[in-house]
Amino acid sequence: MKSFFFPQSVAVFGVSAARSNLGRIIVENMERFGFKDDLYLIGDRDEKVMGRKIYRNIEEVEVIPDLAVFLIPATGLPGALDACGRKGIRRVIIESAGFSEFKEEKKALEKEILDVAKQWNIRIIGPNCVGIVNMENGLTLPFYPMHPKDVKQGPVAVISQSGGLIHDIMMLSFCENVGVNKLVSVGNKLMLDENDFLEFLISDPSTRIIGLYLENIRDGRRFMNLASSTDKPIILLKSNISPSSREIARFHTTALAGDEQVLDAALKQAGVHRVHNIKEMVECFKIFSLPVIEGPKLALMSRSGGYAVLSADAAYRYKFELAEFSDNFFNMVKQKSRAGVIKLTNPIDLGDIFDITSYVEIAENALKEKGVNGLVVIHAYDFEHDVNPTKDFIKAACEISNHCQKPIVFCMVSHKDDWLSMKEVADFPIFTDVDQVLKMLAKSFEHYTYRSKQTVKSPRPMLRAEYQRFPSSGSSMMMPVQEVFELIKSFQLPVADYAVVKGLEEGIDAAQSIGYPVALKVASSHILHKTEKGGVKLDLKDKKEFQDAFLIMDTEEYLVQKMFPRGYEVFIGGKNDPEFGPVILFGLGGIFVEVYKDIAIRVLPIDENTAKEMVKEVKGASILQGYRGMTPADMRSLTACLASVSRLLSEHPEIVNLDINPLIVMEEGKGCVVVDANIEYYF
Amino acid sequence: MKSFFFPQSVAVFGVSAARSNLGRIIVENMERFGFKDDLYLIGDRDEKVMGRKIYRNIEEVEVIPDLAVFLIPATGLPGALDACGRKGIRRVIIESAGFSEFKEEKKALEKEILDVAKQWNIRIIGPNCVGIVNMENGLTLPFYPMHPKDVKQGPVAVISQSGGLIHDIMMLSFCENVGVNKLVSVGNKLMLDENDFLEFLISDPSTRIIGLYLENIRDGRRFMNLASSTDKPIILLKSNISPSSREIARFHTTALAGDEQVLDAALKQAGVHRVHNIKEMVECFKIFSLPVIEGPKLALMSRSGGYAVLSADAAYRYKFELAEFSDNFFNMVKQKSRAGVIKLTNPIDLGDIFDITSYVEIAENALKEKGVNGLVVIHAYDFEHDVNPTKDFIKAACEISNHCQKPIVFCMVSHKDDWLSMKEVADFPIFTDVDQVLKMLAKSFEHYTYRSKQTVKSPRPMLRAEYQRFPSSGSSMMMPVQEVFELIKSFQLPVADYAVVKGLEEGIDAAQSIGYPVALKVASSHILHKTEKGGVKLDLKDKKEFQDAFLIMDTEEYLVQKMFPRGYEVFIGGKNDPEFGPVILFGLGGIFVEVYKDIAIRVLPIDENTAKEMVKEVKGASILQGYRGMTPADMRSLTACLASVSRLLSEHPEIVNLDINPLIVMEEGKGCVVVDANIEYYF
Repeated sequence: MKSFFFPQSVAVFGVSAARSNLGRIIVENMERFGFKDDLYLIGDRDEKVMGRKIYRNIEEVEVIPDLAVFLIPATGLPGALDACGRKGIRRVIIESAGFSEFKEEKKALEKEILDVAKQWNIRIIGPNCVGIVNMENGLTLPFYPMHPKDVKQGPVAVISQSGGLIHDIMMLSFCENVGVNKLVSVGNKLMLDENDFLEFLISDPSTRIIGLYLENIRDGRRFMNLASSTDKPIILLKSNISPSSREIARFHTTALAGDEQVLDAALKQAGVHRVHNIKEMVECFKIFSLPVIEGPKLALMSRSGGYAVLSADAAYRYKFELAEFSDNFFNMVKQKSRAGVIKLTNPIDLGDIFDITSYVEIAENALKEKGVNGLVVIHAYDFEHDVNPTKDFIKAACEISNHCQKPIVFCMVSHKDDWLSMKEVADFPIFTDVDQVLKMLAKSFEHYTYRSKQTVKSPRPMLRAEYQRFPSSGSSMMMPVQEVFELIKSFQLPVADYAVVKGLEEGIDAAQSIGYPVALKVASSHILHKTEKGGVKLDLKDKKEFQDAFLIMDTEEYLVQKMFPRGYEVFIGGKNDPEFGPVILFGLGGIFVEVYKDIAIRVLPIDENTAKEMVKEVKGASILQGYRGMTPADMRSLTACLASVSRLLSEHPEIVNLDINPLIVMEEGKGCVVVDANIEYYF
Repeated sequence: MKSFFFPQSVAVFGVSAARSNLGRIIVENMERFGFKDDLYLIGDRDEKVMGRKIYRNIEEVEVIPDLAVFLIPATGLPGALDACGRKGIRRVIIESAGFSEFKEEKKALEKEILDVAKQWNIRIIGPNCVGIVNMENGLTLPFYPMHPKDVKQGPVAVISQSGGLIHDIMMLSFCENVGVNKLVSVGNKLMLDENDFLEFLISDPSTRIIGLYLENIRDGRRFMNLASSTDKPIILLKSNISPSSREIARFHTTALAGDEQVLDAALKQAGVHRVHNIKEMVECFKIFSLPVIEGPKLALMSRSGGYAVLSADAAYRYKFELAEFSDNFFNMVKQKSRAGVIKLTNPIDLGDIFDITSYVEIAENALKEKGVNGLVVIHAYDFEHDVNPTKDFIKAACEISNHCQKPIVFCMVSHKDDWLSMKEVADFPIFTDVDQVLKMLAKSFEHYTYRSKQTVKSPRPMLRAEYQRFPSSGSSMMMPVQEVFELIKSFQLPVADYAVVKGLEEGIDAAQSIGYPVALKVASSHILHKTEKGGVKLDLKDKKEFQDAFLIMDTEEYLVQKMFPRGYEVFIGGKNDPEFGPVILFGLGGIFVEVYKDIAIRVLPIDENTAKEMVKEVKGASILQGYRGMTPADMRSLTACLASVSRLLSEHPEIVNLDINPLIVMEEGKGCVVVDANIEYYF
């Protein structure tokens, strides 16, 4: 991967001297960004570009370039790639468009390219991308004009599935004084995908923060494993959220654990920060360029009473606490105040202190106060002579924050004239709005909490091939009820005694041996929502009741089941998600799930600790602790059941959907029992 | 009120020639903003400021100024105000601080000022404020320096309880090319408050959009009545949300209908847009400076595939629909495309159309397509020669939008060099992020929907004095159970037959005449959660059971009650909110309220239509329509009960809290019955 970012020599295909030629623009970019290593231009005409020769073909080039970049028509690619292979080139970026993103039929062309690549062991980025930018060596491969005055070098790397987005993220970052280090546009991900670059950037010493724009995630498991393996903040903007079509959900799980819900659960498990727009992404870059906040206690200081109130509101909204200051600190502040009167509170109201130079000492002391984890400064200035002291204050805040390794978040609405220059004063982010600042600071604290606890174990590596060997478009069927129960039992899940029967006599014998009271149900796995269809008769107390129920029910196969004891009804689901593989879902039954969508989802596998967390996450599950005088539920047995379902699903990736509904959780010490279960699987 | 904004002559008190003198800054501001009318300066020294004389006292001034502005020490104000009164001045702005915002003891000084004002019939803005800015006549009263080059004149008016915030809202608006018209800082609201200015600005022809920053709302009812009376968008940033202290909630209602919940309900009823930070406020100013969107159907056009996906996502997220385009439209677009290949989709992907000048025609035609309610353009440019065509496109978009009276929302990340100048091209807002744009557009549509439906009747005017005559700090007590039931019955609420008894014989007689089965409860209104305390025995079927229960229960007064039939348990609450007066609350009982806070709140009065809306708003109430085979509940009777409670609370503002819990709603046609109720009232 390093050869892509640090090539000693690059060949650009498709260059001409025409001013609008996209290859030429790349050459100009590389010149402007001072790419020092060798650059070879390949094109159709005997021209020169910026004094450089255009070669007619790669054979003519004297060396074997480390990297080839293509901007030639799609159809010419297989041939050109083969020529590269013969030459000995092993790294290729295809920027040209006109592949599967344009027409489904072009998949054949992509396949052809892949075949050539495999033959020569070539690694490909793209097609349909803008390549790589590496600020460390001036490698600047996008085919739109770039200027060093429009980019700042810094700690951020971006991986993007859209060339347009990468451009805007770069420009917006620059407007916010955020420095970038490496940008990579992955295009159609014919071969290399986001995970390959993520892996490289995690190990790249110059990269401290990683942003991604993705329209799909190629291998969700690998993504999770990579993300949870690093301390570097990873920020994801994932698009394509609008469900194009939803089949009618035969399973609760399918309806509840949609792509978005599974993605959110997976990202949370892997400690990835999800954002919903590029502004929020850049705000994340800003907050993570400060030291991470390691506790919830804040010092707030404001020049205006209104902002003092708003900052306290924001602290409350995002679950921060206001630190208590020492008398020493307040005495120091008092000495700086004009009238010597200052309210002994946090937020510190600086209304009475006009001299901006004295803010530095206050800020430093506030940050150093015992128990203070971070400082939010809401600054303002009106007078022209306040401009320079404000700039000095920003520089000092940057130094203090770095020195103390605690964040100082600097928040200010500048005058329009100073809007951009104020942001550029130091290598330090300036924020505009205190409410948004605290929202971002909450992400920083979340990051700290995740990395320091790491109680959520990263899922065991599972090859994508393993859980995707059953195509989502393949044929599936419902598992017969008896098989379902046998499978479930084999994973130590307690199932109510049952028998599947056809005739009345057989039924009466079964009921007798199971012991009254019993339930009688239609056994067919094809009928869901049996209750509504008269396919369920509960609490049959004796032979007479059983017989009456049996004769009314019209089916071929009957399920006779031990009537379950009273308890809490819960629901466990599972599905094989196309991006993340097997996931598990927990919730209470009925209205809690249907109306409130009050569920917890995890990518598998989970252990009993994670199962506990899942139960805790479900709001309504508070009733399991005993509700209005009811006995608490057997939590140990419930979490054991969840862990069992996790094992079952992990070992049976052919299961596409599973509903255990209800699972009855009885009072403490009395265990659980599965009353009904359905499984759909690929065959 | 007009004299405050359009005075023919202004006297400023507290002016000196010192450069840092705040009065002098006001004079400089007025000069710079070209205030043409008379300006008199009053101060202690025989000096001149900018060639103007400083008068030693108001008596010396030759005319009677329409408006006096004070920047003198707080303690001197009663005397100065009296002098103004004698002179004949009837409008005063006190910008000086040092009143109740500083120390509670200063309330006495405020009282003194009010007394003087009343004596002379003087109207006061402030104290502790920065006064008024009126761009129409150059009235510029803040005591911080302002420059015409830092403000643009436009449709926005702002009312703010903080001088600092008003400054930042003004500056941020300017950076976003938003024009302001009138700004007023209300300070401590000693006399005039936000409602007085809101009323004026609603009738002000130059004001089209109104923003407010408030730390408290003086008279919530009046605010609602004003807001719902106008088509002008009203945007509120309300702070002070962190609950300082919460008494232990004896009533469900108190716990559930906190200040925030009531405020949200009231704002929704009045069609006010609530924001949580000043950036969002300014974004609202931007979206409302475009024509309001009158339907959910959008046309989207983007230069980049990534943004096309993100814009479709955002449309989905904020519940918009993608319009369908005609063949004619697509043919026109095709003709402009370079390769003649363009996908026939919405979002329109402009990737194949390089010439920005042709976007104008596409945009115009898209907006004029049948059924299209608005257009979102996600623009981008890389090349220098694209800068001017982009500016022309912006200007044209502004014109087309105005001409068609449908919004074109223009979204773009500019290069840093052009960041500000791109925004200034036209009197037209430029947005940065498509996700945030659609969020704002949803507010625009919400605005249209509210104003066009107006099904929510504005609450009948109720004087604040009426519902606040019982001080929130006053003494309250629980109403005895018999009185509660009698009061409820007198408002046509059905109550289960009951009797309050003391001795066993009396109890047996009562049970007999009510008819078994009965419930027996401790009658004391001081014991809440009686069930947990053994104070409730249900379903006593005969004399024997009744007698046994009676002898075990240890209390002085017993409530004998007809055992209620089975049905849906719901909850109706009421409270007298300090800002909005009586409010009503509806939810299901138990876990639905306690865990999910699934409730609907309205400021009173409500009619049966609003009651229906409330029931619909409660998610869990879907079970009332019949859940898993249960019979539907008697909705007509339920809504009648809600309307009855509304009448009861409206006519009894002394009630501070009311819980009817549970109300049993029986199946259709069978009505409701109140089983338990508690009332706390001021006496």
